[in-house]
Amino acid sequence: MTDVTTVTETSVTPVGLPVGDDDLTTPRMRFWGWGVDGHDGPLPPGAEALMTSELGPSAGAGPRRDPVALQDVALPDSRIGTPARDALVAVVGTEHVRDDHATRVVHSAGKSYPDLVRLRTGTVAHAPDAVVYPADHDEVVAVLAVAAEHRLTVVPFGGGSSVVGGVEPLLGDGHDAVVTVDLARLSFVRAVDARSQTATVGAGTTGPEVERLLAAHGLTLGHYPQSFEFSTVGGWVATRSAGQASTGYGRIDDLVLAVRAATPAGEFTSLAIPGTAAGPDLRELLVGSEGTLGIITEVVLRVRPRPAAARYEAWVVPDMSAGVETLRELEQHGIAPAIARLSDEEETRLQFAMAGGSTSTKIGKAYLAARGRANGCTLILGYEGTPGVIAEQRAHVVPVVRRHGGVALGSRPGEAWRAGRFHGPYLRDELLARGVLVDTLETATSWGTLLELYRAVGSALRRSLAARGTPALVMCHVSHVYPTGASLYFTFLAAQETGAELEQWHAAKSAAGEAIVAAGGTITHHHAVGRDHAPWLTPEIGALGTDLLRAAKARVDPDGLLNPGKLIDGAPLPGA
Amino acid sequence: MTDVTTVTETSVTPVGLPVGDDDLTTPRMRFWGWGVDGHDGPLPPGAEALMTSELGPSAGAGPRRDPVALQDVALPDSRIGTPARDALVAVVGTEHVRDDHATRVVHSAGKSYPDLVRLRTGTVAHAPDAVVYPADHDEVVAVLAVAAEHRLTVVPFGGGSSVVGGVEPLLGDGHDAVVTVDLARLSFVRAVDARSQTATVGAGTTGPEVERLLAAHGLTLGHYPQSFEFSTVGGWVATRSAGQASTGYGRIDDLVLAVRAATPAGEFTSLAIPGTAAGPDLRELLVGSEGTLGIITEVVLRVRPRPAAARYEAWVVPDMSAGVETLRELEQHGIAPAIARLSDEEETRLQFAMAGGSTSTKIGKAYLAARGRANGCTLILGYEGTPGVIAEQRAHVVPVVRRHGGVALGSRPGEAWRAGRFHGPYLRDELLARGVLVDTLETATSWGTLLELYRAVGSALRRSLAARGTPALVMCHVSHVYPTGASLYFTFLAAQETGAELEQWHAAKSAAGEAIVAAGGTITHHHAVGRDHAPWLTPEIGALGTDLLRAAKARVDPDGLLNPGKLIDGAPLPGA
Repeated sequence: MTDVTTVTETSVTPVGLPVGDDDLTTPRMRFWGWGVDGHDGPLPPGAEALMTSELGPSAGAGPRRDPVALQDVALPDSRIGTPARDALVAVVGTEHVRDDHATRVVHSAGKSYPDLVRLRTGTVAHAPDAVVYPADHDEVVAVLAVAAEHRLTVVPFGGGSSVVGGVEPLLGDGHDAVVTVDLARLSFVRAVDARSQTATVGAGTTGPEVERLLAAHGLTLGHYPQSFEFSTVGGWVATRSAGQASTGYGRIDDLVLAVRAATPAGEFTSLAIPGTAAGPDLRELLVGSEGTLGIITEVVLRVRPRPAAARYEAWVVPDMSAGVETLRELEQHGIAPAIARLSDEEETRLQFAMAGGSTSTKIGKAYLAARGRANGCTLILGYEGTPGVIAEQRAHVVPVVRRHGGVALGSRPGEAWRAGRFHGPYLRDELLARGVLVDTLETATSWGTLLELYRAVGSALRRSLAARGTPALVMCHVSHVYPTGASLYFTFLAAQETGAELEQWHAAKSAAGEAIVAAGGTITHHHAVGRDHAPWLTPEIGALGTDLLRAAKARVDPDGLLNPGKLIDGAPLPGA
Repeated sequence: MTDVTTVTETSVTPVGLPVGDDDLTTPRMRFWGWGVDGHDGPLPPGAEALMTSELGPSAGAGPRRDPVALQDVALPDSRIGTPARDALVAVVGTEHVRDDHATRVVHSAGKSYPDLVRLRTGTVAHAPDAVVYPADHDEVVAVLAVAAEHRLTVVPFGGGSSVVGGVEPLLGDGHDAVVTVDLARLSFVRAVDARSQTATVGAGTTGPEVERLLAAHGLTLGHYPQSFEFSTVGGWVATRSAGQASTGYGRIDDLVLAVRAATPAGEFTSLAIPGTAAGPDLRELLVGSEGTLGIITEVVLRVRPRPAAARYEAWVVPDMSAGVETLRELEQHGIAPAIARLSDEEETRLQFAMAGGSTSTKIGKAYLAARGRANGCTLILGYEGTPGVIAEQRAHVVPVVRRHGGVALGSRPGEAWRAGRFHGPYLRDELLARGVLVDTLETATSWGTLLELYRAVGSALRRSLAARGTPALVMCHVSHVYPTGASLYFTFLAAQETGAELEQWHAAKSAAGEAIVAAGGTITHHHAVGRDHAPWLTPEIGALGTDLLRAAKARVDPDGLLNPGKLIDGAPLPGA
C-alpha cells in the first residue's frame, strides 16, 4: 500500500572533488579558502580599482597576498595516545583514523573571516589530534564510547563550512585530545516515501548529492545555502540553516521531520510525524544544537516534486523602504515566490559597479536612469514550479511590484544571479588576497522593526570601522521573508588593518552584535551561534534559556565530550 | 515608523457567562459537563432509538441518568494551612483566593469521559485545596514563590476543558496542599502590530475573546478547537493545540512566535522573531509543556486580516481511500482550503442517520444513491479569504475532488457543519445521560501509513469493546492535513458497562494506545498528553527524550511544584 522506495545507501563523492572511501584525506576544500582550485574565478575587471577608490590605497592595489603552502603550516604534535588511537582503529578501521598533517590542517577550522586570515598565513589556532570517519550510526556510537573511556573531545564535522567557529577543535576540560568526527561516509538517501514526500538522508550527504540522489526519484529538497556545494545535511540541521529558496521551501527546521542522533547517553530519535500534541517538540532541541548535544547521523526530510520550470527575474524598486513593503505585501498575501531577495541601495550600486563597463550593464543603467531608478534597489524574484503555476503566481506578483514602483529588468539579470548564487565565498578569497576585510552577518526581526534594525546595524558597522581609520562599505539584502518579518544579511568591506586584522574584525563584529541585541533582532538568522555569536546568545534567550540548554547538555553529555566552547559557554572570539 | 497599536489591556467576560472580577466563583462550565445551561441542545429526533438499535437495549432507551446537584458533591476538607492561605491572600487579595465548595468542585477535573462519569455521580477524585486568580505575570511569579515556601503544588488552569486529565489537582511528593492557579484575569490583547501581523495575548483569554478583541483591529487568529468557546490561549499553547482550521491557519505551534512564562527558577521568555539560527528553539519546550515547566502568562501570536468571505461546502467521495487521496493531492499541491475534513463511511452513515428523516436529508440521500454514492464519505471544505481568492482556490480544488469521484452537496450541509462545529461536547452530555459511552481520540502519521493506522486503531477499539460485550460504533475523520501526512480523529460509542464504566473505558483507551504506538502514529494530535496519554509518551519520544524533559523540569522546577503526574511520570489512568 505504501509507496516507499527503499533505495540502497549510496556512498558518494562530493561534487568536483574526490572523497571516496579510498581517498578521504583529499581536502574537500582548499585549506586556506573556499572551494577547490579551478572552481574559483577572478575578480571582475575594474574590481581592484573600485576597492582602492572605495576603501583606500591599501585595498585592491598592490601585490597579491597569497596564502602559504600546505606544507608550511605548522601544527602542534598530535596529543592522542596509542591506546585511544587503537580503540578508534578498532571501531572504524585503520584507514579511517587519520592524523597526517594535511588531514589535521583541513579540519583545524571552518571558513570564517578570522579562520581564513589565520590559515592564509599558516597559523592554526587549534588542530584535531586525529580525524575519524565512521561508516554509520553504530560506528558513531562506538566512537563516542571510546571518547568517554579515553577522555577525548569530539567535534562533529560535515562540510567544514562553518563561518562562526563551529568546527574549531577546542580541547574540553579534563580531556587529553581532540578527535574530529568527519561524517563524509554517512552519505546516502534512502527510504524515499513518494506518497508522503519524505526521504531519510545521511548526515554527511552534501547539497549536490542530496539533489542528485533525490532527482532519481523526481524529487527535490530545495535547500540552497550559499555553502550548498560543500555543506552537508547534518550540518544544515545542526546549525538550523536557511537556504536561498527558504521563502518558498522553508528553512531546514521546516523541512526536518525527524532527527536521529548519537549522544554519549544513548540514541536520540524522534517520530517522523507531520503534527502532534504529544508534549514539547524535542526534535527542536537537536535542530540547532551545533554538535553540542549529539552527533546527528540521519534525518527524515520533507521533499517535493522537482519543479518543472523556473523563472528568475530582476526588478528595480525606488528604495529600500519600497522594497521592504513590496516583500511584506507579497508574503502576507501568500504569493511570495520561492526566492525573494532585495538588495539595498548600496548593494545595488556595488552590483552595478562590479558588473563593470559591459554594454548590457551600461544599457541597463541608462534604462534605469531614464525611468527614475538610477539609485534604486534590485529585487530578485525566483519562481519555481510548473509553467502554469509560475504564470499564475507572476500574474499576482507583478502588479504588486509595479504598484510599489518596480521597474522590470527581465530574466537575464535574474538568471545571472542564479548562475552565481554560490560564488560569493570564492570572491571573498580574491578580496582577501588584495588586503580587503570582507565579512557577512545576518539577523531577523518583525516587519515593524526591520528598517530600524537595518539602520542600527549598518551604522554600528560603519562607525566601528571608521573609528579605526578604515571606513567601510556596508551593504545589505533581505533574502528570507516570513509573514511576520524578514531577515537582513549584511556584507561589509574595509581595508584590512595590517597586523591587527583580527582586532579590527572583532571590533566590527562586536559593534554589530550589540546593535542587533539592542534592537531586538536575533544574533544570527543564517549561520548559527558557534563560538563567534556565543556572547550574544544569553541576551537573546535569557539566563533561564541558557540554563535549559546547559541542563539538556548535562543530561546527554555529562562528560562534556561534544564540541566544547560552542553555542553556550563559548570560547573567546578571535581578536578579543 | 512601526505600526504598533498598543491597546489597553481588556479584562473580559467569556462568552455567555459572567466571570468578571466580581464573580470569579461562577462556574464557566457546569461542573458535570460541557458548557453552560441553555447552550446545550437536545438530541436530534430518533437518536435515542438509533443508539438502542446500534448499541443495544441499555443505550438510549430507559430513564435519563441525570447528574447529582452541585451541593451533593462531597469534597475532602481543604488541606491548605492558614500561613499559606494568608501568603496567597497577600499576593492576590482576599477576593482572589477561593476555597468555597463550588469553586473547588469546578476546578477538580477537566472534561474527559472519566472526569464526567465521576462528576455526574458526585465523585471527586481530587480537589484543589484553594483556587487563586492572579491579576498578571508578576502575581503568578509571587504565587509560585509562596508555593515554594509553603510546599504547595500548583496546577495551572485555563478553560478547564482538558480531556486528558491535564488539570487534575494531584498532590506532589512532599507537598502539603494543591493550589489551582486560574488564569481568568489574564485576559487581554495588547501590542497589536498590524504591519507585522502579530499580537500579544494574555494566557487566560478565551477563544471568543481573542477573536472579539482582534476583530477590533480587523484581525483574526483563526484558531478554532472544538473547545473554542471556553478554552484559553494559554491552554492552547500549553497543550500544543490544533484547531478546526489548522490546515489553513496552522496549529497553535505555527502561530506562536514567543512565549512568556513564570517558572519557579525565574522568567522564561523568547524573542518574537520570525526565524533564527540561534541554537535550539527553546520556545518549543514551553509549547506543549502542559503546565509542568512553567505557567504561561502571555504569548505573541501571528494574526491575519479577518477573512472578508467564507464558503463551507460538502462533497461525498466514494470511500475513505478516495477521500484520503483527494486531501493528499490538495495539500501537496498547496491548494487545500482552510478547513478540509473527511468523514469515513461510518461517520458519514451516522451523520445521515442522526440528521433523521427530514425532507432535505431524504432528498440528499436519494440524490447520492442515484449518483452511486449511497455509502460514501462526506468531505467538508471550508474556504476563507476574499471572494476572489476563494473563487480562484475553488477553481483549482473542484476538478481534483471531482476527479477522485466527488459529488457536490453544495454549501448548505457545509454551513450546517460550521454552525454546529462546537456542538459535539454538548451532545456527549446528552448521550451520557442515556447510558452511552462516548469518547474521542486522535493520532497522526504520514500519508504512506495513514490507512494502515486508521484500520489498526478502529480494529483495536472494536475488538476491545466487543470483548466486554458492548459492541462499539467507531467512526473517524481526517481533519488536519499536512504535506507529509494527516491526522485521524476517532469517535467511539458503546453501551456503558454499568458499575464498570471506567474499566470499560480504560480497556478501550489502552487498546487504542497500543495500536497507535505499534503503527508508528503519535499518541495525540489534538488533545495533549496530560495523565491519560502519559503511558505512551516514552514509547513515542524514547527514553532519552523523556530524560531530556525530566532534566528541563529539574532545572526550572526543582521542587516539583508544577502540575505533577502529567506529561511525564503520569499518574495511573482512571479505571486502570
